[in-house]
Amino acid sequence: MSLTTTIENTDTAQLEKILASAAAAADILRGQDRATRAKYLNAVADGLDAAGDTLVPIAQQETNLPEGRLRGELKRTTFQLRLFAEVIQDGAYLDARIDHADADWPMGAPRPDLRRTHIPLGPVAVFAASNFPFAFSVAGGDTASALAGGNPVIVKAHSGHLELSRETARVVTESLAAAGAPEGTFGIVYGTASGSALVSDSRVQAVGFTGSIPGGRALFNIASQRPDPIPFYGELGSNNPVFVTQAADKARGAEIAQEFVGSFTMGSGQFCTKPGTIFVPEGSEFLAALENVELPDVGALLNERIREGYIDSIKDLQAANGVEKLLAGAEPYGEIPSPILSLTTAEHILKNPESLLEECFGPAALVVEYDGEESLVELAKVFEGQLTASLQAEEGDELAALIDVLATKAGRVLWNQWPTGVSVTYAQQHGGPYPASTNSGSTSVGTAAIARFQRPVAFQGFPQQFLPDELRDEPGAPVSQRLVNGRA
Amino acid sequence: MSLTTTIENTDTAQLEKILASAAAAADILRGQDRATRAKYLNAVADGLDAAGDTLVPIAQQETNLPEGRLRGELKRTTFQLRLFAEVIQDGAYLDARIDHADADWPMGAPRPDLRRTHIPLGPVAVFAASNFPFAFSVAGGDTASALAGGNPVIVKAHSGHLELSRETARVVTESLAAAGAPEGTFGIVYGTASGSALVSDSRVQAVGFTGSIPGGRALFNIASQRPDPIPFYGELGSNNPVFVTQAADKARGAEIAQEFVGSFTMGSGQFCTKPGTIFVPEGSEFLAALENVELPDVGALLNERIREGYIDSIKDLQAANGVEKLLAGAEPYGEIPSPILSLTTAEHILKNPESLLEECFGPAALVVEYDGEESLVELAKVFEGQLTASLQAEEGDELAALIDVLATKAGRVLWNQWPTGVSVTYAQQHGGPYPASTNSGSTSVGTAAIARFQRPVAFQGFPQQFLPDELRDEPGAPVSQRLVNGRA
Repeated sequence: MSLTTTIENTDTAQLEKILASAAAAADILRGQDRATRAKYLNAVADGLDAAGDTLVPIAQQETNLPEGRLRGELKRTTFQLRLFAEVIQDGAYLDARIDHADADWPMGAPRPDLRRTHIPLGPVAVFAASNFPFAFSVAGGDTASALAGGNPVIVKAHSGHLELSRETARVVTESLAAAGAPEGTFGIVYGTASGSALVSDSRVQAVGFTGSIPGGRALFNIASQRPDPIPFYGELGSNNPVFVTQAADKARGAEIAQEFVGSFTMGSGQFCTKPGTIFVPEGSEFLAALENVELPDVGALLNERIREGYIDSIKDLQAANGVEKLLAGAEPYGEIPSPILSLTTAEHILKNPESLLEECFGPAALVVEYDGEESLVELAKVFEGQLTASLQAEEGDELAALIDVLATKAGRVLWNQWPTGVSVTYAQQHGGPYPASTNSGSTSVGTAAIARFQRPVAFQGFPQQFLPDELRDEPGAPVSQRLVNGRA
Repeated sequence: MSLTTTIENTDTAQLEKILASAAAAADILRGQDRATRAKYLNAVADGLDAAGDTLVPIAQQETNLPEGRLRGELKRTTFQLRLFAEVIQDGAYLDARIDHADADWPMGAPRPDLRRTHIPLGPVAVFAASNFPFAFSVAGGDTASALAGGNPVIVKAHSGHLELSRETARVVTESLAAAGAPEGTFGIVYGTASGSALVSDSRVQAVGFTGSIPGGRALFNIASQRPDPIPFYGELGSNNPVFVTQAADKARGAEIAQEFVGSFTMGSGQFCTKPGTIFVPEGSEFLAALENVELPDVGALLNERIREGYIDSIKDLQAANGVEKLLAGAEPYGEIPSPILSLTTAEHILKNPESLLEECFGPAALVVEYDGEESLVELAKVFEGQLTASLQAEEGDELAALIDVLATKAGRVLWNQWPTGVSVTYAQQHGGPYPASTNSGSTSVGTAAIARFQRPVAFQGFPQQFLPDELRDEPGAPVSQRLVNGRA
């Protein structure tokens, strides 16, 4: 396998062609039924599955991730596409509502016949992430949910895996074409300038982004400052704290320590849901057990830029007041950094939260000793918005106040489980208050993610034949969960 | 009735007290059940109904609106509060989802037990509008939906009806207190600076706004540029075009003319859904019939500032190239302006859409003659985002392409009905692409408006007793439309 091809940045003329093509596709896609859209999603899934033996080796070479992980991630990616195909055929995601005309509506004026559904937004720009070269990249969750919603997608490729991006894009484009999707349903651009240009362009109607806080915020600002602002769904960063109660520590301290090490080192610590901070009681079984834990060897980080950022950030943490090195592998600052755990106290967290709780992308985490379980509520309040917050606790613990605060801070709250490994399901929530997300009302994983890329429209007094199918008295395709006169 | 009291702008110390109180209330409200919240909404509705004889005369004096209209609006307002009380007790609005653990989940990794619901956001700032002193003001739709979602509300009073705002706020505050709501559940501030300060304050978690494009955009920019951006739900402006087909003109031209005049002059043309532009075929029955239509007398505009803006805007329109006066009452530029209709052609609209299609707040509208029905699609594409777009058509017309474009432009599309008079229902959609709304994925009228003021949270692996009621296997209160393992 040689990756000698140079991939040039998309130039202005190419970008214009891609945008014009996406805008034209939007008008066609909007009029197609859900079964047709489902066919496109399934075709992309089939195409990617068939191309696994080509794509996975390129991904290995570009990202340093091991084959097993990448094959699992590809499986997750194609599962996701097929799940969205099922969900759109079910139709509940349309939140279709029908109010029949009612002359006696108690508002004081007759109620007209009103029927509300959701329609596609138009071209969606998707910014790929580096750390999941399949599941959060070219054909990942944002692309799947935008296509499911009936929108064309233009991906901004991540510079960390350009060749894989191009090959994946080729498979997606060919699969869509073979399934009969209009030209322009999918496009890809390369280079930072193309990404910004996408977000500014009046034809682009929404953005999905997974990446860093500075990069994401800059693009969010462009989206918000357009003459016509558009929704920007960005997942920017998260520390994912874990709170261990005294009872849990007593009952399972050693087990928790072992599992924690497994979670924060998974994927070389390059998961957006990596538990970056764990709170344990003073004099814990957890800490005692860590002495006997051997930190695992992890793989090389995704690329040199990420490795440098990681080394800087663990050096900064080690230099911070009140932080000491707790446990480290042989070469925490090496070419392939071995994991490192640091230790501090709750007091220092309260004094200097910005520095100590900053997200660190790589195999490092911080253990915080607390004095008195009642302080956990105050400590939880220190955090900014999070993707996840986890409890290690026992059922007899007094936890109502802490759980309440964690729910205000995070999109997903876990009980005696670890945040890494985000399942694609109906009830998943991946996104939380800023900076976890730029739009905390949405999720970027799970079937509710489609809602980001559609818009409600009501039809008043319409004859049956001019209504969208899902709003007709007798729809041709299934629509579950229709609300008729306010009743399911 | 004398309105001699001066209402001073809220000062910094008062604002701080209101914000601190709202933040404290948020923590209490979040923990209360839906039946309790419903009790608060019903108490406010009862309080306002009981205070009608006090509030309506103040409203008359401050807004120039007639008593009958104001009594009707108050009825709508209290109906709305009670409807939200019903909706939250039904529970469908929580979009509760339960995924049971599944070891064989085809993603390639076991699915954990995941349960997703929505929680309140926290304090919501509501900017009152001038034109509906009850329904879009202190206790209007934004306030009702934010309270229904479990959030404290701080209203920025509209300067056009300060005394009414203060009295309404007094009724709301007393009713909430009597029903047992925590102090700080409702607050009100006065003055532009207080409004901006609310949007900037880190305790405020969302904003509802109805008003002008410049004012709304300025506040939207503040909300988006905060260190932690918050959702800004603004309804800014709309022209509400009406498209009359040749067949409809032939069949009902005179009737359409009569109804159009009724709609654009309703409430002295001060409705956000006023039909500002109507497209009719060349040589229409519509125009012929207008010669025999007498424009009605309308009431004085809301205030002098609005009157001056209105006069400027109709003078500008009359001065524009290709626009002529079609029909006017006795004193279109008078102290109480009588209605005025102008005329132009499709050709001029295409040449100069920005000037000719600008929203004009008051009893004026523009008739546009088109040549050939196929041109309507192109004309519809000229519009920015709209709250509404209406068809006057016959069932035999070829309309698929036009309806498709109108759905991309507007939140509500009407068939042979008029956009003024927005019913509060389950399927209502009030909001569309920018500038109709700053967030086209939401509605500010109808029961779906609650969704603006809540946020999804998933609980993973939780024991029953620590879950929110609606996510338990056997919830204590009703929750309709729960999705269990992806099935209703």
